[in-house]
Amino acid sequence: MSDAIATYIDAHKARFVDELQEFLRFPSVSAQRSHDPDCLACAQWLQKHFADLGLDCTLEDQGGQPIVVARKKGKSDKRVVIYGHYDVQPEDPIDQWKTQPFEPVIKDEIIYARGATDDKGQLLAHVKAVEALLKTEGELPCEIIFMLEGEEESGGDALGRYVRGPGSELKPDAVVISDGDMYDETTPAITYGLRGIITFEVTVKGPGFDLHSGAYGGAVANPAMMLVQLLSQCATQDGHIKIPGFYDAVRPIPDWEAENIRSLNFDDQVILRDTQSPTLHGETEYNTLERLWARPTFEINGIYGGYQGQHSKTIIPSQATAKISVRLVPDQSPEQIRDLIFGYLRSISPDSVTLELEFTGGGPPVVYDVTTDTMQAAQAALKSGFDAEAKFIRTGGSIPVVSTFSDQWNCPVILMGLGLDSDGPHSPNEHFSLKNFYKGIKASVDLFRRMGS
Amino acid sequence: MSDAIATYIDAHKARFVDELQEFLRFPSVSAQRSHDPDCLACAQWLQKHFADLGLDCTLEDQGGQPIVVARKKGKSDKRVVIYGHYDVQPEDPIDQWKTQPFEPVIKDEIIYARGATDDKGQLLAHVKAVEALLKTEGELPCEIIFMLEGEEESGGDALGRYVRGPGSELKPDAVVISDGDMYDETTPAITYGLRGIITFEVTVKGPGFDLHSGAYGGAVANPAMMLVQLLSQCATQDGHIKIPGFYDAVRPIPDWEAENIRSLNFDDQVILRDTQSPTLHGETEYNTLERLWARPTFEINGIYGGYQGQHSKTIIPSQATAKISVRLVPDQSPEQIRDLIFGYLRSISPDSVTLELEFTGGGPPVVYDVTTDTMQAAQAALKSGFDAEAKFIRTGGSIPVVSTFSDQWNCPVILMGLGLDSDGPHSPNEHFSLKNFYKGIKASVDLFRRMGS
Repeated sequence: MSDAIATYIDAHKARFVDELQEFLRFPSVSAQRSHDPDCLACAQWLQKHFADLGLDCTLEDQGGQPIVVARKKGKSDKRVVIYGHYDVQPEDPIDQWKTQPFEPVIKDEIIYARGATDDKGQLLAHVKAVEALLKTEGELPCEIIFMLEGEEESGGDALGRYVRGPGSELKPDAVVISDGDMYDETTPAITYGLRGIITFEVTVKGPGFDLHSGAYGGAVANPAMMLVQLLSQCATQDGHIKIPGFYDAVRPIPDWEAENIRSLNFDDQVILRDTQSPTLHGETEYNTLERLWARPTFEINGIYGGYQGQHSKTIIPSQATAKISVRLVPDQSPEQIRDLIFGYLRSISPDSVTLELEFTGGGPPVVYDVTTDTMQAAQAALKSGFDAEAKFIRTGGSIPVVSTFSDQWNCPVILMGLGLDSDGPHSPNEHFSLKNFYKGIKASVDLFRRMGS
Repeated sequence: MSDAIATYIDAHKARFVDELQEFLRFPSVSAQRSHDPDCLACAQWLQKHFADLGLDCTLEDQGGQPIVVARKKGKSDKRVVIYGHYDVQPEDPIDQWKTQPFEPVIKDEIIYARGATDDKGQLLAHVKAVEALLKTEGELPCEIIFMLEGEEESGGDALGRYVRGPGSELKPDAVVISDGDMYDETTPAITYGLRGIITFEVTVKGPGFDLHSGAYGGAVANPAMMLVQLLSQCATQDGHIKIPGFYDAVRPIPDWEAENIRSLNFDDQVILRDTQSPTLHGETEYNTLERLWARPTFEINGIYGGYQGQHSKTIIPSQATAKISVRLVPDQSPEQIRDLIFGYLRSISPDSVTLELEFTGGGPPVVYDVTTDTMQAAQAALKSGFDAEAKFIRTGGSIPVVSTFSDQWNCPVILMGLGLDSDGPHSPNEHFSLKNFYKGIKASVDLFRRMGS
């Protein structure tokens, strides 16, 4: 990297962090309608920021939250799309935050706020790389198009509609996404595989209203107990999914991947420490990274029904609900797995209750070839920014939009996460390392140059 | 019944109902600390009411809510204790009430309000019987002592401490309790058996905070799923309890009871209609009344953990809780069953989560001999008040204080319910028949006379 650019980045760190703090103060929670005005204000802040840097920027309306699209031509004809999302997870459980979720606090070069790592901090690194290139060299090495959506955390498809519609002619040479993890605090990584996901709600309804559990217990079915019975038939205690046919499309782990995973020498203690869990858990025939990266899961994200107040209330609740997410791996199809699970639940639900199933979103799993020129360029750029060899890894998370890009443009998608699992992306006290923010800016500069050459 | 008393009762009906409305306006919810002042105000209202009638009345402090004790000597030395409770269930789910829970509404001779049937309306019938006797005859046929507690709905033991302590020397010839059901709308009943109960909370804790279900799903146990697994191992889908040893002390149903139950010709459609349930449910080898009266149950009263907001939040929740009530039948002991269940849950809980069990209250099951003079007198009094033969029945509900009286005083306890299951005692839109209120007053007058003779 030229001294001029590195010098520029180092000289403007403090302002970059001020800007990140401004960005984090928007409570852009897309899952809650009450925060729609905050999402819009956040998108408008980004629009002004891009305009000030000299990019052409529009807010694209495809229904749902606006999509921020900002573009500028470069020296070469090569084109890179930078994806990110400005919306964030809900902040609850609010009582477990040590600081205010939407008032960023910096301590020991770590910034704490909802959205710090997921995804505002990570996406802003690319914005600042564009600034550094423009301010020092006056032009970009390739054309850059930012596409920043506002409903990644709520399963919206406005960006999908944009990419398949007005944006379909913007086919780039690569899409770059920083919305994930490094291998560890000092080792960058390229994520070549993502789990897919479906989310849905299961509601079991029984009597028309809550009943006295003494007067009716034994004669009327308890919807909370029936929900428990249904869910317990979906997976074993060690996480093996019991739904017939569920594993039919699961691709076995190939030898090179099993070898790559072994070579990472992953330490299970990292997860125990980061999550404060009593022990690890899961299918005993797979090691931890295999379970996280290449095995599907069936998770209860939330469950509720009946009395939740102080002390006891001896009722048979009239209904109970569970919010479920199922992580998928190649070659499971979200639609097929949804139909399989819904059919299974309907087949085992007793007549004494009514079952309601609501599908709330999903996206397919993906894996990329790590041997292409683009992937190799990304690995080199990360080495330049972080001064460390980038690992090739997969992740247990899901970025449904990745397959939107793949399907529409059939181009490589470079997932170069700047965060860490332990940043707590969906948890209280979410945070992001400012050191990796600065290194990420430098890696992004290097990547744009390599893409332009 | 003398014409004078019947005439008095008929002449003062409207005022009796006004007084019941006043009584029902107190939101005396003992399970919620915020309602402590309302419980006290309600007890003070009763105190003034008794004093105005000429009874000696004190509020006894045994910790918890005050106990209203009101007494007056009678013509004979015989003594009857009237038990009732002035506290009520929480009103939620508030959105399912058609009228305000603490603003009584009368429609078609039915009064709607929280506590209408459980237990303010029922206990006030006895108060008005005492009034009618005093106002028409100037004295009572026997000594009457009201003991009205304020923590029946929250499992408190203040009344137990009173009965075992300062009240221990007040041993009566019988205790009368109206806190339950008639056989049907026109047929009174004496309840000679009650299920016992234990209530407890099961909390399963996993990671120290909510986790991203993609980043950690498959490696870290999901406490909500573990709670589901534990609870599903406690009972089958048809309600048979799977905890080893649970049924060891359950008394088989004797022939005379099975015959009595058959003779009642119970219609299952009544429950389907009253509860708006899809079908009935339970152990197939027992009929509905046998299941309700003489078989134990394991019910989830409430379950909660993780995200309950709009749409989805893809987390592994850090913990999940279920509130459980277990109904017991003779000769199951609450303490033994608690220990059995807690031991079982601990034995099946995996190392990947932490199990917390909190016992929140209980009381043993009881059955009384229906052939005694006292039971026969009660049956005759009900016939006098209701002009219909009283049935001998059991109930699936639990009144822990019944065994407190039996244990302390070894005297008969007459359970003459004036309500109906369909009154919705723990449900939204709780209500009570004013016709049965008036009949209950007359039956109470007759019972006091029979007890005094």
